[in-house]
Amino acid sequence: MRTTLMRIIFLAIVVTFTAGVPEVKAQEDAWKIGPRTVPASVDVSDVVRESLLKTTTPDVAAAKGLVFTTAKEWKAWAEEGNVPSAAAARALAEALSITIQEDKIAGVNVHHLTPAETAKEHKKHLFVYIHGGAWVRNEGVAGTLEAVLIAAHLKMPVISIDYRMPPKHPAPAAIDDVVAVWKELLKKRSPASMTMGGTSGGANITLASIHRLRDLQLDFPGALYLGTPCVDIDMIGDSRFINEGIDRNLGSWEGVPIEAGVMYAGDYDHKHPYISPIYGDFENFPPTYLITGTRDLLLSDSVRAHRKLRRAGVEADLHIYEGQAHGDYIALWNAPESAEHYAELNAFMLKHLSRPIIPAPTLPTAASKGIEIPKSAGW
Amino acid sequence: MRTTLMRIIFLAIVVTFTAGVPEVKAQEDAWKIGPRTVPASVDVSDVVRESLLKTTTPDVAAAKGLVFTTAKEWKAWAEEGNVPSAAAARALAEALSITIQEDKIAGVNVHHLTPAETAKEHKKHLFVYIHGGAWVRNEGVAGTLEAVLIAAHLKMPVISIDYRMPPKHPAPAAIDDVVAVWKELLKKRSPASMTMGGTSGGANITLASIHRLRDLQLDFPGALYLGTPCVDIDMIGDSRFINEGIDRNLGSWEGVPIEAGVMYAGDYDHKHPYISPIYGDFENFPPTYLITGTRDLLLSDSVRAHRKLRRAGVEADLHIYEGQAHGDYIALWNAPESAEHYAELNAFMLKHLSRPIIPAPTLPTAASKGIEIPKSAGW
Repeated sequence: MRTTLMRIIFLAIVVTFTAGVPEVKAQEDAWKIGPRTVPASVDVSDVVRESLLKTTTPDVAAAKGLVFTTAKEWKAWAEEGNVPSAAAARALAEALSITIQEDKIAGVNVHHLTPAETAKEHKKHLFVYIHGGAWVRNEGVAGTLEAVLIAAHLKMPVISIDYRMPPKHPAPAAIDDVVAVWKELLKKRSPASMTMGGTSGGANITLASIHRLRDLQLDFPGALYLGTPCVDIDMIGDSRFINEGIDRNLGSWEGVPIEAGVMYAGDYDHKHPYISPIYGDFENFPPTYLITGTRDLLLSDSVRAHRKLRRAGVEADLHIYEGQAHGDYIALWNAPESAEHYAELNAFMLKHLSRPIIPAPTLPTAASKGIEIPKSAGW
Repeated sequence: MRTTLMRIIFLAIVVTFTAGVPEVKAQEDAWKIGPRTVPASVDVSDVVRESLLKTTTPDVAAAKGLVFTTAKEWKAWAEEGNVPSAAAARALAEALSITIQEDKIAGVNVHHLTPAETAKEHKKHLFVYIHGGAWVRNEGVAGTLEAVLIAAHLKMPVISIDYRMPPKHPAPAAIDDVVAVWKELLKKRSPASMTMGGTSGGANITLASIHRLRDLQLDFPGALYLGTPCVDIDMIGDSRFINEGIDRNLGSWEGVPIEAGVMYAGDYDHKHPYISPIYGDFENFPPTYLITGTRDLLLSDSVRAHRKLRRAGVEADLHIYEGQAHGDYIALWNAPESAEHYAELNAFMLKHLSRPIIPAPTLPTAASKGIEIPKSAGW
C-alpha cells in the first residue's frame, strides 16, 4: 500500500517535471546527443570573451588521436610543454616581483617562491604547491607557473615540489616525494599553518597525498586547494562526456590524459585512492577550496570531490566560473576572473590557516617614546 | 615594453595549456559542436542512475516546438501540470505527515505547511516559499510540492505564496504579492528569523523580490534559498547551449521557457532586475544557498548568481549534483541525493537564521523534582 502510494507520487512528480519533453519510451544505456552551437560566453570579462572569440572549435579527433607509445615520445611531449612553461614562469616571476630559488628538501627538488613583500597575516604561513601537467609535464621551473601567481596574489611564501614523474617514475614516486617534503616541514612548522594544493594532476596528487598521510598517521595541512582536480583517472563523470570538445584546453579525456593516467598508475588499481582519490575516505579532511568552470572537461571531478567532502562533514567551498575551460584561471592569468579566484583562495586561507590571535607587540617608535600618560589623566 | 612582456607571457601560457588541441586558426563567434554519447551517470545513487537509465534521449525538437499563442493554450498547459502536481503534493503531505492549510495574508492566497513536529531549533523560524513552474504553472495546492518536502526535511513551518500569474497577471503581480505577504509577516516576526526561496521560476521571483525590497527600503530575510534559479530570461549562459537536450526536464530554453518568460515580463525590459535579477545590485544580500546539477540547462544561472553574490561579499554556498537535470532533487525526491540536499539546506538555515542563544528553561520533571544537592556535596 505504502509502496503503491510512493509509486503514484513518483509518477505524478515525473509527469509534472517532464511536461516539456516527450514521454519515456524505453530503456537505453546512453543518450545520443546531437550537434550544437556554443557561442562565446556573455557574462564574462572582456579578456575571457575575447579569448573565446579568438579560439576556433576544439578539434576532438586531433585530441583523441594524440597517443604516445614510447618513453621517448612522452619525454618529447613533456619537453614541448616544459620550455614555454618555464619561460612563462620566469617572465611572470619577474613581472610580479617573485624570486624563485632552487633547493632540496629531504632529497626532493623544490623551488622556493618568495614575494617581494609577504602579507603580515601570512608571515607564519606556507603554501605547499604541487604542480599539474598530466603527471608527466612541468619538470623544473616549468612547474612553478601557478606557484608564482599564488605567491603574488596571496603575498604568501610558496614551496613548489618538483616531484618525480613517469615514464621513469610512476606512482607512488610523486606521492612519496610530497610526503617526504611534508615530513621535513613538520619538524619546524605546525601543520595547521600550512596549506597544500595545486591544479589538475597536482590536485590529484594533493588528494592522494592526504590519503597517504592518513595511512602513515601523519598530520594533515590546515587547508587544501584543489584547482579543477582529476579525482578519477577513468572515463567517469558527466562532464567528461558533456564537455568533450567544449573544453578548449583538454579537448577530450581520451588521448593524452587517459594514457598519461594509465602510465602514472603503473601497477596500481585504477580505483586505488592514491590514483583515483575519489575512492578514498574523506573523513577529517582539511577545509577545502575547489575551482572549476562551465566548459571544464573535469567539472564533474570537482562536483564529485565537493560532495564527497561535504558528506564527510568537511567544510568545502565550490567555485565555478562561466566560460572557463580546464585551468583557464592560469591560462588567462590576466583576466579579472583569475584575480577574483586568487582573492577567494586567499580569503579561504586567511579563514582556515592557524594564526596567532595576539599580534607581536609593536615596539614604540622614537617619536612616541617620550609620551607618558600623566597620573592625573582620567579614562 | 611591459605590454610586450605580458603578451609573451600570455602566449607562452596559452601554448602550455592547449598542447592537446590544435593551434588557433581564425576568429569565429560560435563553436559548432558535434554529436556525443552521454551514458547514465556512474557516481550517483541507484535511484538517480535507474531513473537516468529509464529515460530516453530528450527530444529537443519537440521541446522547441512547444509554443503557445493564446491565453487559452497557456491555461490548458498550466492545468495539465497543475493536476498531477496537486495530487503529488497532497499524497506527499499525507505520507510525510504535513498538514496543508489555505489562508489569505494581505489579500494574497497562501498555504501554511505544518510538520507533525517542528524542530526545536526552528520553533521561531518561518520558511517563506515561492513555487516554480515557469511563472505560469502550479496555482493552488500544486505550488506546495517542494514546500511539503521542505517542511518535512527541515521540520520547519512553511508559508507557500500562491502568487498571481500570467497570462492574466504578468510582472510585477507575483513580486507585489510576495512583498505584500512579507510586509504583513514583518509586523509579527523579525526578518532575520525568516528565510525566503524556491526553485526555478520561484527562485527568480525570490531574487526579484529582494531587489524590490531594497527599492522599498524594507528589511531582507535572514537567508535565501535559490534552487536552480532562472536569473536571466534571455538565451544567455553557457549551460543553455551546452546542456540543451541533456537536461531531461527542461530540454531546451527555446519553446515554453523563453515564451513564458516573455509573457511574464510583460512591459518590462528583459534586463530589468525584477525580470532578470542577475542585472540587479547584490550588495548586502542575505546569505544564500544555491543548488543545481551537471545536466541542468540552468547550471550557468546558478554559477552567475553565485559569483555575483560573492563579488558583492555575500556568503553564498554553491552545491552541484552529478547527473541531475533541472529540479531533479524534487522530481527524484526519494533519492538519497534529495535528502542530502535538504540536509545541507537545513544546516545552512540553522547557521544563518537568528536564534535565541539562551534556550528556554526546562522545568524539572516530576521524577527529578525531589532531588536536592546536599550542602555537604563538593564540586
